[in-house]
Formats: sequence, C-alpha cells, structure tokens
Amino acid sequence: MRAVDVITRKRDGAVLSRDEIAYLINGYTAGGIPGYQMAAWAMAVFFKGMTAEETAFLTEAMLKSGAVMDLSGIPGPFIDKHSTGGVGDKTSLIIAPVIASLGVKDPMMSGRALGHTGGTLDKLDAIPGYRTDLSAQEFRRILAKDGFAMTGQTKDIAPADRLLYALRDVTGTVESIPLITASILSKKAAEGADALVLDVKYGSGAFMKQKDDADALARSLVDTGAAMGKRIVALLTDMDEPLGNMAGNFLEVEESFACLEGNGPDDLMNVSLALAARMAVLGGKAGTADEGRALCEDAIANGKPRRLFLDNIESQGGNARQFLSMLGNYRSEYRADIRAARSGYIARIDALKIGRAGVRLGVGRDRSEDEVSPVAGVHFHKKHGCAVTAGECVMAVYAKDDAALAAALPLLEEAVEYADEAPEARNLIWKEVAGARDIARF
Amino acid sequence: MRAVDVITRKRDGAVLSRDEIAYLINGYTAGGIPGYQMAAWAMAVFFKGMTAEETAFLTEAMLKSGAVMDLSGIPGPFIDKHSTGGVGDKTSLIIAPVIASLGVKDPMMSGRALGHTGGTLDKLDAIPGYRTDLSAQEFRRILAKDGFAMTGQTKDIAPADRLLYALRDVTGTVESIPLITASILSKKAAEGADALVLDVKYGSGAFMKQKDDADALARSLVDTGAAMGKRIVALLTDMDEPLGNMAGNFLEVEESFACLEGNGPDDLMNVSLALAARMAVLGGKAGTADEGRALCEDAIANGKPRRLFLDNIESQGGNARQFLSMLGNYRSEYRADIRAARSGYIARIDALKIGRAGVRLGVGRDRSEDEVSPVAGVHFHKKHGCAVTAGECVMAVYAKDDAALAAALPLLEEAVEYADEAPEARNLIWKEVAGARDIARF
Repeated sequence: MRAVDVITRKRDGAVLSRDEIAYLINGYTAGGIPGYQMAAWAMAVFFKGMTAEETAFLTEAMLKSGAVMDLSGIPGPFIDKHSTGGVGDKTSLIIAPVIASLGVKDPMMSGRALGHTGGTLDKLDAIPGYRTDLSAQEFRRILAKDGFAMTGQTKDIAPADRLLYALRDVTGTVESIPLITASILSKKAAEGADALVLDVKYGSGAFMKQKDDADALARSLVDTGAAMGKRIVALLTDMDEPLGNMAGNFLEVEESFACLEGNGPDDLMNVSLALAARMAVLGGKAGTADEGRALCEDAIANGKPRRLFLDNIESQGGNARQFLSMLGNYRSEYRADIRAARSGYIARIDALKIGRAGVRLGVGRDRSEDEVSPVAGVHFHKKHGCAVTAGECVMAVYAKDDAALAAALPLLEEAVEYADEAPEARNLIWKEVAGARDIARF
Repeated sequence: MRAVDVITRKRDGAVLSRDEIAYLINGYTAGGIPGYQMAAWAMAVFFKGMTAEETAFLTEAMLKSGAVMDLSGIPGPFIDKHSTGGVGDKTSLIIAPVIASLGVKDPMMSGRALGHTGGTLDKLDAIPGYRTDLSAQEFRRILAKDGFAMTGQTKDIAPADRLLYALRDVTGTVESIPLITASILSKKAAEGADALVLDVKYGSGAFMKQKDDADALARSLVDTGAAMGKRIVALLTDMDEPLGNMAGNFLEVEESFACLEGNGPDDLMNVSLALAARMAVLGGKAGTADEGRALCEDAIANGKPRRLFLDNIESQGGNARQFLSMLGNYRSEYRADIRAARSGYIARIDALKIGRAGVRLGVGRDRSEDEVSPVAGVHFHKKHGCAVTAGECVMAVYAKDDAALAAALPLLEEAVEYADEAPEARNLIWKEVAGARDIARF
C-alpha cells in the first residue's frame, strides 16, 4: 500500500477500507507517513467526506493508537456525556453527581479551555487541592466509590488524535465533520463508557455556528457510534448566549453546586436535566426521557447529588468544608460592573463575545501554555428577555488583574444587545438525534 | 499573514492575491512554510482551482524563485515550443533547425524521460559527444551562432517548482490544471522566449488521457500566458498512437534527421510543421499559419535546416561525420520482431503500452536515477490503418539486454490492436487554442 494512492482514492471520492485508514493512521503515528501526506488526505476528506463506516474505522484506528481505560471489576452501567463546547457550559459538573445518585456511573475525562470555550478541568482546578491528574488506579477507585470521577485525558489516550488535531489546526482542515467526529469519539471511546450522550451546540458561542452544521455533526456522531456498536444520543442545544448566570472557573463550580442545591437558573437546569435524563435511560434506570428527568429532579430534591459532589471533592484531594466557605466569596478583587446602556429589554448576550472577553479576563486561554485564573469571570444579573433600566447592573466582572479588566470591558459592553420590546422566549433544546432504537424511546 | 489563513481562504473558494501566493511560495522555498501546509493548499487548489490571474501569480512566484536566462545582446525573435509529453514525440529536434533557418531563434531547455514518456535530453545524449549540460555562456553563444541551442534545465531554474512538484507527486495533487500550468510556464518563462507554442497532447500516451482535460489545460496555459503578458498558442494533438515510426533515443534522432532530409513519416511531419508554422507567425516571419507552413516546407526542401542540425551537433560537442555514419546502423544487438498475430488491418498501436514497454527496453525510466540506453527502442513498420498479413513484421524491437527484451515483448504484442476493415483515418490535430489576437490569424 502507498499513502499517495490512498490520498488519491479519497480525493476521487472512493470509500476507503479499514486497512487503508489504519495504514495511514498507524504510519503517521509511527512516523513513517509524513505530515504532508496526512495534510493532503485531511483536505481531501474535507471536500469528499467519509461514510459513517469509514469514520468508525478512523475512530477505531485513533483509539487503538493509545491506551483504553479498563473498568472491569467495577459494576456499571457506565454512561458519559460530552459537549462540543460553549460559554458557561458547566453541565458536566451537575450531571455527574445526579446520575451517579441514580446508580449510573460516569467515567469523565475532560479537556481544558481553548479559545473562547471553557474547559471542565480548568473549572475543577479552581477548587483548592482538587486533582485532575488522577492515575488510572485512582480514577477506578474514585469512580467505584463516588459513582463518578473527573480527570484529564492522559497523553496515552489516542495519541494519533493529538497529532492529527495539531496538523489539522495549521492546515485549514479542522472544519470537517468526519474528522471532528473521529476526534471526539476516539477520546470518548477510550474512557470505556457503554453509551454516550452528546450535547452538540450551535450558535455564536459554539464551535458550529449554524444549526444545520451542528445537526450534520450530531448525525455523524450518532451514525458513527452505530457503526462502532456504541449507542449515542445527541441533543442539539442553543449556545448563542452563555448557559446559566456564571462564566468563569470557580464561578461555574459555584453555580453547578447551586443547581444541586435546587437553586440553579432555568436555562442551565433545563439543558442539564435533558442530558441527564437520557443518560438515565441509556443506563437502564428509566424507560423514557420524561421518566429519567423526573428521577433526576427527585434525586436533586432529596440531596444525594449534593452530597456526592462534596464527597468527590474530598476524594480528589479537595476539602469540602473549605469549598463551602468559599461560596459567594472567592472572587477576584479586580472587578467592575457593566451597566445597562439604555432602558428596555436584553435581546441577547452574545456568547462568542463573552467567551473572547473571558480569555482577556483570565478565564480561558488562546494558547495551550497560557495560565488561567480561578477567580476571573462574569456574573450575569440580566440575560435574554430581562427588562432593564439604563444604569442598572447587567453583569459583574472579575479579572485576573487591572490590565485584563480594562482589556475586557469594551468587549463585554459590546456583547449586550438591547430591544424595545420583550423578545420571544428562546428554545434552548432544538432537537434530538439518535439511532432507531433510541429515537423511539425519547 | 499566516499560511493557515491562506489555505483556508483557498479551501473556501476565495481568489488569492499576488501577495498571498508569493508568501506561500517564498516561504516554502526558504523553508519557513512546511510541506504539510503546502500539501493542504495544493489539495485545496485541486478542488477549488485558480483563476488565470492567480495562476500567473503562482507562475511568477516560482519563476522568481530562481534564475532567468539573459538573452540580451542576441538578436531575436526568440520563440520556443513545449510539449506536454508523449511517445515518439521528437518534434523539438525537427522544429528547432527549421525555424532557425527562417531567422527565428529557439532557446530550448528540455527534460528527461520519466515514466512512459520520452525526454529530449535523453535523445540528444544518444549522439556521441553531444553535451546537454551547457553553461549559460555556452548556451548563449550556440544560440547566437546556430539559431537554436538545446540544454537541460539547470538547478537554478525555478527551484520552487522542483520542490512543489516533488511534493505534489506524493500527495495526490499532480492532476491540477492550474498547478500543471504554473509548473510548465515557470520553467519555460525562465528561458527568456518572447512567445511559446505548446503541443498539448491527449490520448493514452499523453499525460491528459481525455480530450476535454487537454483542452482545459491548453486554455489555462494560454489564459495564464495572457495574464503574464506572454503570447501563447496551443495545438491539441493526438497521442493515442506513437508519433512517427521510431520510438527510442538514437532512433528518434535518426528519424528527426530523416524529416529534415524530406523523408519523414506523414504524421510526424504534419504535427511538426503545424507547430513550426505557428512559431514562424509568432516570430513575425509569416502572416498566417498556412504561410508559415509553406515557409517551413520550402526551408526543408532547400536543405538549410539539415545543415543547421549538423552544425549544432558540432557546436554542442558531437561529430557530424560520425553521426552520419551511424544512421541506420546504431542499433542494439538485443533485438526481436513483433509479427502480426492475424491478417487484417492495424486498428491502433497503443501509445501507453509502447511507452511502458519502452521503460522495460531501456528507452525511458521509472525513477529519475535510472540509466537509459541510446540504442534501445522500437521501429514501427506498420501503424494505424496499415493492412497486414499474419506473420508479417509489425515492429522491430531493440533492448538494452536480453532480460529487458523478454520483459517488454508481451507488452508490445498487447499494444497492437487489429481490425477486419480499414479503420477511419486519424485526425492528428484536433484544434488550436490561442488568445484573441492570435486566434484571428491562424
């Protein structure tokens, strides 16, 4: 086999075989196939696409390039959730203890903030002492004990994906649905979960700006899962405005905890419960999404997820009492308010602008080597649909330092859009994409 | 400027600027832009194409990456011819002395055989003592004296093209009309010719198998020339059967000389005269192609091109008397005949199979480091349309050794197609493609 022939076949629209795809991925990972051939192939895939079966072969080859978490000996079911990323998107922190309280285990490996989107690991790292660099043994032990464990992807997970992603990033081949699909699924499959619920976001703060692109990605993820024999259910959700009232690292942990205490904002609770409900179904704890949602609401009401959250802080190296004492207080001293520029209604708080301002504040990062601040962020007092009077506080802003604050404020002001009339209510959950056997149930 | 942005713009169908294209080519040649970015860009160009203006910018950037022949001080006009390559394609050797005899100078830089197509340099090297590695000074001197000079492309001609071509060869991006156009024109522009006549071939033995692809390439070459302010006229000619009755290195030199003596085969003479006629027009020696052709025929009849050919052999290090003594005798001792498998008519001698057999015989090469034989080749006694009796000799075959002969014979037998009835005559010259001011004239 020659790489140039495989590239040419894809260029001309052929469906590649499992062997051809494995040949490319294995050769590239081992160093025998150079980056220029992979880049040409990735661009050909950008234009010609891949079938669900080809995407499954690619996922499989990238998965096999590294280690897979061994969950044998721990009673299941294991169901994980993955989000394509957003601003204020903290549902993982809420969902994991909720479904754990129902007896569904969540083996969660997360990433860091990059660009305008936040990262679960950076949020967890804002809890003093909390460790997100668990060994496989620690991960298994905590998962068995608390019902969930949260760690970073280790270097031995899908190294082919890391190599290929870095190449795509500099060759204009990031925006390819099959390549995105295989990148997501190769890492998620390494966690050893039995099934996956995916939150595929669209809107300004999402990776996919257009609904149709997000829909196509969701379809590709579900179909590729089916081709791999892995059940996947995707929800398409709105990321045009930040999710919840907090965007920041510790701020988002705090808001997640408020959700578990029954004090979460409606938009965040709705999306979190919709996702958790489907995990309950896939884990065999409920027959329908409605049943699953009722179980999750009952669980929150009885307080078990809140306790599991605090237990997990202790399990992963933090101090629950200290954490509780920080709630409402752990804020940067570099702060300012964004006040309403006029009276009327908030038409929209642009998630992308908030995310970009977040990078300036110190919430996120543009380059993977940048440090983030635990105490930077934005607390929204007003969001879509709220009536405001000129001069009223729309958001409280916390920065890592004065320069960061000054740099972020103009962008934050620009992020607020006003209207004379109350805007129509937003529908946060557009639709569900699932395989035939799941779609009938939800 | 960032390479990834230029790649993404081309991927999304944008027209790149002169600066963007120069940035990529200069960066790649200097080593600052890696092969994986150029490969992704080349694949994006494969899918999205380039306008004539973009192709002209690319040609210009590649041309400027190296040296340009300085012809100042030598009286012009300088008109060159380029062929996209074929089997038995020896028209350059015939045309150069013909048009030189009319006072049109031909500064000819040629390539070597690769794959199934022959190379002018390998043919010239079959003349004992003949040097194709002229210095710029020697080239200028011989061009001024004989009216034409024939040498290889030196390493300092368009190094960016050499780099990019090697990359395209292993990344499935050879078959891109704008990239082929810029590769051809960047090298040809370095010769310093005022205008170009192009022989764009189609058919089994050509680079472009399909007429439409050849037509699109011819159009691209002419339009890109126009965007660069260089007059180009292209003829689309048939390469489904080898041109002339000889394919080989010395064999083709011998047949070219026969043409200059008035003893050339019709197909070869027709294509050569059609090309030479247009060079005479572009050089200002004739008003129309018909007038140009008549001038070329008269020149051959009066013997001047034949004398110039022998003079050039002397000028470039060979010995004219020795050359004349070799005609008809300089043949490999490893020989065999291909005899007609049946009685009837020759429907076709497949140029691609002959070219591939030629590589086995020692005429051409698969890898650029392979040696070729001066005395290997095929002499066709029968071609398209000839009546044959079973057992009659169709071609005489000469190989570099016995193993080569044995390896080539089955392919040569396969190359001959028979018919019961006399096939329709072939039309060797399909059409002409030229800019507005030239098309009116031809």
